Amino acid sequence: MTTPRFSRTEIVDTASLAAATETVSKKHTIRQPVLIVGTGLLGTSIGLGLRAAGVEVLLTDPSPSAQAVAEDIGAGRSLTADHQPGTVIVAAPPDVTGDEIINALQRWSEAVVLDVASVKTAIANHLAEAISDGRITSQDAQRYIGTHPMAGRERSGPVAARGELFTAAPWVLCKTPATPQYVIDVASDVARLLGATIYHMSAEEHDAAVAQISHLPQIAASLLASRLQDTSAQALQLAGNGLRDTTRIAASDASLWVQILTANADQILPELYGMKADLDRLINTLNAPYATGSRLDVAQLMDEGNRGQARIPGKHGGPAQSFALVTVLIDDTPGAMVSALQAVAEAGVNVEDLRMEHSSGYQVGMLEISVVPGHKKHLVASLTALGWKVL
Amino acid sequence: MTTPRFSRTEIVDTASLAAATETVSKKHTIRQPVLIVGTGLLGTSIGLGLRAAGVEVLLTDPSPSAQAVAEDIGAGRSLTADHQPGTVIVAAPPDVTGDEIINALQRWSEAVVLDVASVKTAIANHLAEAISDGRITSQDAQRYIGTHPMAGRERSGPVAARGELFTAAPWVLCKTPATPQYVIDVASDVARLLGATIYHMSAEEHDAAVAQISHLPQIAASLLASRLQDTSAQALQLAGNGLRDTTRIAASDASLWVQILTANADQILPELYGMKADLDRLINTLNAPYATGSRLDVAQLMDEGNRGQARIPGKHGGPAQSFALVTVLIDDTPGAMVSALQAVAEAGVNVEDLRMEHSSGYQVGMLEISVVPGHKKHLVASLTALGWKVL
Repeated sequence: MTTPRFSRTEIVDTASLAAATETVSKKHTIRQPVLIVGTGLLGTSIGLGLRAAGVEVLLTDPSPSAQAVAEDIGAGRSLTADHQPGTVIVAAPPDVTGDEIINALQRWSEAVVLDVASVKTAIANHLAEAISDGRITSQDAQRYIGTHPMAGRERSGPVAARGELFTAAPWVLCKTPATPQYVIDVASDVARLLGATIYHMSAEEHDAAVAQISHLPQIAASLLASRLQDTSAQALQLAGNGLRDTTRIAASDASLWVQILTANADQILPELYGMKADLDRLINTLNAPYATGSRLDVAQLMDEGNRGQARIPGKHGGPAQSFALVTVLIDDTPGAMVSALQAVAEAGVNVEDLRMEHSSGYQVGMLEISVVPGHKKHLVASLTALGWKVL
Repeated sequence: MTTPRFSRTEIVDTASLAAATETVSKKHTIRQPVLIVGTGLLGTSIGLGLRAAGVEVLLTDPSPSAQAVAEDIGAGRSLTADHQPGTVIVAAPPDVTGDEIINALQRWSEAVVLDVASVKTAIANHLAEAISDGRITSQDAQRYIGTHPMAGRERSGPVAARGELFTAAPWVLCKTPATPQYVIDVASDVARLLGATIYHMSAEEHDAAVAQISHLPQIAASLLASRLQDTSAQALQLAGNGLRDTTRIAASDASLWVQILTANADQILPELYGMKADLDRLINTLNAPYATGSRLDVAQLMDEGNRGQARIPGKHGGPAQSFALVTVLIDDTPGAMVSALQAVAEAGVNVEDLRMEHSSGYQVGMLEISVVPGHKKHLVASLTALGWKVL
């Protein structure tokens, strides 16, 4: 094996990224000051991002310490009795979001009110009840628009907040036919200033969408991971990336998910019934695996999985694309991965996706590099010529 | 934002990797020539790896073209009537593996025979039947040992074969109390020469283990992905890494999985009943989400998922370790990722794991870097000082 040779790395600066993010116009229609109700991860991140865009931000949270942390890291100033917010962003836990929206609509009769909770129909129903029992008027309710920024981190709380949290993340706006344009504009400008990609959907469309692409995967991961509670340590040593990937989100915050699944039960249930029917069918089939039709039945189930998986869009929202995988063996030192990726960059090939694959008991890693299929042959040849072991 | 400055990259060669792989002793007890029955991905990869270690390899496959490809790429020579293989490795599809083992034991009365199929008890039962109906003797059967190398690729067939496929992968050997030491030694030496990590389990232990850590994840991913067949394109645009990760293996080869699931039905069924019980419980709960006890019930399910997920071992087979995540914003150019990782290497921090996170519609990526928690603060400070946007 020859030792790889490297030329001096061409320095790639991040100026183009800076330029791209700086082309976002700082002009906006957001009514100031903006009050953020709830200084957890999302609320504090929104505060930091809006402040960076020059927007005046006020903060309130039932936890004085959470509010103090958010203030200390620069997400905004404390709300006082004198303040008249022009925009209220409710970033409270899902369970109390509906009431916080109603409070805001009642208290500040001119303010635009939006929320960022991950289920929207339950909140719309909550507001409809408040109208029918006279707590708010339907005119009040028109100042509200439901939104959902689809961003998160593995940690929660204001300390984990970052103004860049929403960069390039989808942000769904759920306007209704009654929502005035100025309300839509304010919500759009909040999402835009924070760097998110805006999608318009009805609350029902949104809740059906997240049931399928977010809530059902969470349930599947939790149901699967739950089975591992009594798995032997010996068996778990054989685990590969398949198990790790399918169960990763099972580590999510249980109390938050209780609120989400409860609030979106109506949209989730039909999916669970569908999953249950398929599971029952598989159980029946595997009880008589060599009976006529059994193998066809399992094949159909696997094929349906193939077809569903193939529908997930690729990078940048483009059509699902099947990238070619190039796997490079590297030793497990700080610089080995850099050297390998440098060799890829020098070959002029773009890395579409990247995974590290580790194996038990070895100080050797495999770097799985996804590239456009037409580039694979050239990349394998280039890496091999430099002495890399390529699978 | 300042432009990151880079010093000349320190060149890290792969000599230490080469040294590590070359310390594998080339001495072995494998009886030659080795005949490989089935020149698909696994068989051809084994041939290439053994040939690289200086072992004489013969090949046979019912498909003349598959056999010719395997020969052409150097995996071995064609089997002829004159050859007397000392070791036979059956790498046929799971469905025909049992019969191929019996054929080999009958035809070559001195050869050690092993197979590489992913379910072991069904094959052991198949051999027991062959003994009881007199096709082979129990002495013949002692020359057989079941094995399972846990390696694969997204592609199949001899063209995809690589001698390095098994490097650092687990390879399970299923000896029985009757298996003579020389047979165990031959199988161990095959796995060792190919760079794999050897695990000893009974066939039952193996099948129970793969039911939980491999077959059940495949079923969960397929059941989940199957739900996406009718999901709107608009909803799928909101998909993030959670959905991608939980469904990735649903793209696996349907016909291979029919054979695997059918052969291991006895071990898989108890897991499916457990999953069904949890699913039924969740459906009942979500049908009355605000009833007394409902929220506790959902919380328990999520918590059980948390606990199962936490049991999956970390890198290198060590205890599950919670790495700290550092997310760096990069633009989507060939060199940006290299520059970022170079900055990480220059900070002296080891990358424990790595993910690219892409978002729809933006030419911006997020590089998720897992590091030992104690190194996070230093790394964030180093990257920020260089002008990187760190979440």
